[in-house]
Amino acid sequence: MATAAETQAMRHAVALAARGLGHTSPNPVVGCVILDADGRVAGEGWHQRAGGPHAEVHALRAAGERARGGTALVTLEPCNHTGRTGPCAQALIAAGIARVRYAVADPTAQARGGAATLAAAGIDVAAGLLAQEAEAVNEPWLTAMRRGRPFVLWKYAATLDGRSAAADGTSRWITSPDSRADVHRLRAEADAVVVGSGTLRADDPHLAVRGRESVTQPLRVVVDSGATVKPGARVLDDAAPTLIAVAEDTSTAHLPRRPGVETVRLPRAAGTGLLIPALLAELHGRGVRSVLLEGGPTLAGAFLAAGAVDKVVGYLAPVLLGAGPAALADAGITTITRALRLETVDVTRLGPDLRVTAVPTVVTTPATPTTPASLAEEN
Amino acid sequence: MATAAETQAMRHAVALAARGLGHTSPNPVVGCVILDADGRVAGEGWHQRAGGPHAEVHALRAAGERARGGTALVTLEPCNHTGRTGPCAQALIAAGIARVRYAVADPTAQARGGAATLAAAGIDVAAGLLAQEAEAVNEPWLTAMRRGRPFVLWKYAATLDGRSAAADGTSRWITSPDSRADVHRLRAEADAVVVGSGTLRADDPHLAVRGRESVTQPLRVVVDSGATVKPGARVLDDAAPTLIAVAEDTSTAHLPRRPGVETVRLPRAAGTGLLIPALLAELHGRGVRSVLLEGGPTLAGAFLAAGAVDKVVGYLAPVLLGAGPAALADAGITTITRALRLETVDVTRLGPDLRVTAVPTVVTTPATPTTPASLAEEN
Repeated sequence: MATAAETQAMRHAVALAARGLGHTSPNPVVGCVILDADGRVAGEGWHQRAGGPHAEVHALRAAGERARGGTALVTLEPCNHTGRTGPCAQALIAAGIARVRYAVADPTAQARGGAATLAAAGIDVAAGLLAQEAEAVNEPWLTAMRRGRPFVLWKYAATLDGRSAAADGTSRWITSPDSRADVHRLRAEADAVVVGSGTLRADDPHLAVRGRESVTQPLRVVVDSGATVKPGARVLDDAAPTLIAVAEDTSTAHLPRRPGVETVRLPRAAGTGLLIPALLAELHGRGVRSVLLEGGPTLAGAFLAAGAVDKVVGYLAPVLLGAGPAALADAGITTITRALRLETVDVTRLGPDLRVTAVPTVVTTPATPTTPASLAEEN
Repeated sequence: MATAAETQAMRHAVALAARGLGHTSPNPVVGCVILDADGRVAGEGWHQRAGGPHAEVHALRAAGERARGGTALVTLEPCNHTGRTGPCAQALIAAGIARVRYAVADPTAQARGGAATLAAAGIDVAAGLLAQEAEAVNEPWLTAMRRGRPFVLWKYAATLDGRSAAADGTSRWITSPDSRADVHRLRAEADAVVVGSGTLRADDPHLAVRGRESVTQPLRVVVDSGATVKPGARVLDDAAPTLIAVAEDTSTAHLPRRPGVETVRLPRAAGTGLLIPALLAELHGRGVRSVLLEGGPTLAGAFLAAGAVDKVVGYLAPVLLGAGPAALADAGITTITRALRLETVDVTRLGPDLRVTAVPTVVTTPATPTTPASLAEEN
């Protein structure tokens, strides 16, 4: 059982961990609070950026001698390996910590074993305190480690009738300033922002984060099998690094060669576009742990068809159009029993808009037989 | 100023009025509570069905002699005319009521003037107590009286990407049992349920209310310019009356002639289908004060283009399809500045689904100029 002070300290450690979102990849976000032998807060810290000290090291430094005989609350199992910084398990032992409570076990072969090392050194170690909260704050990294590819969040904006633009292509502004600011938050927390060439041609998006301080700009990724991006495209400016993913057989001689803009060749998919798993493997290899997929509808359909969307955030504006492109195009679904069913995890009003957050659930066959062409819920 | 007892009584009167929803057209719903001279509840009543006694008469009967010197709380201005029942203003005067507090003025030329009659008789009369609540419960009727046509509520069910069915037409079940039960509530409160011939052909809907007690079945209205309804269609059974609206030049010789099924001829619209204002005028003339428009997308588009939708209720299921018919088709909107903007008045979770209720707002030109083909919110 955890004491009230320990629970409170772990909750704070989770909040500290969140400060690292968008800055730590390929590492997780981690927060740590050290309580002294009397249960008072002696130090705290969080993993601020890849290559910098781990959360435990920050917290132990702040606690100094008060760490001796104290308790460390850590959101993730302390690491056991020597990477760019030393193993945290050893640092905790060296500091004379008596108890360690961590929320979530490290799923990586490389880093796990910290808990066993601590226990072998005679430290009282237990896992699971506020595990749900700690899982949530580290969702992208944990998902990436478990699936061996980056976490993918698909974001879309649409009217109540599912349109992302009017019939003539205009779409400014369907959603509200509140929603658009929220999208910049998602970008700031992502390692990479991905768009397709259709969106690139139609909208010339910039994709960098605006309106937020001390941001690590995400990698801008353009999925552009035919290398159609224009040299003057906004996505190629120096506001953030950019990766252009083209097909293996596409000429790239015309693409700009300049620092911060890279090109990668990937296999084509069976239909159109590039192979999504190959794209994700490429990004994973580059240390990308979380991807914000911003569209358009065709690329989103390809990701969904590949089972490569972990979470959906839809910004629904109280607007009706009755015509214009849909927010989502072909995802390989032709009949209702194959529909991608989601579980809604959050609904928030952002100004006039609704933000719906949902995660895909396992596809189940409905209990009642399907009547062809029956729109039975309207009957 | 109203006393606490009066406010409480009026709140109860509003709740009483709501019991009449779906049963009173062409009349409004009305609730009434009588307090005796000491401010205690002496009687209550509501208008239960067209042709039956008004709310005030029910309440006065219940109060008997205790009404003398008392206060009547009424959700709508007491009527001044002799219809199928006598004028309520006279009934209140005859019962010796000393004070009348009503919430909303009667907007009809026929019935208004009740307040003046009461005041002329020396009764202390005031309007406005809980006016907002009383407006809300009588929204369909008040809207119908003010606009000279039935109140129209457009209901649709769709996935998060705005589809009302999969690519092959299957749609069972997109929304949850909770949502489908809620639709039957909407039907029970409506005087008429309207669908287009496309929905009729695709889904053979029944449109009657199921799963609710003491329901006045709504009139089932089929907008079927070409008289394509099949003799065996479920909508033609005897569960509820049915009106088939066809074009003036359409042969109806093949349509079934049987009690409960009527045909009406209406002018064609300039494009396809029938003239919506003519349809609404026809329904208004038949005493229909509230219409539940159930689709399909083409008919909904025609109603929206005609400015004939007063409220929208969307049932959004946490499902993605990426293909299939949209919930809303052509409403005459081709560019974003002409989008139909709504104000969301309620968001409720129904099982896994979201129910979004919204009302159209006045169209305003955006403050920022529109850039053609700019999907700026994604940039």
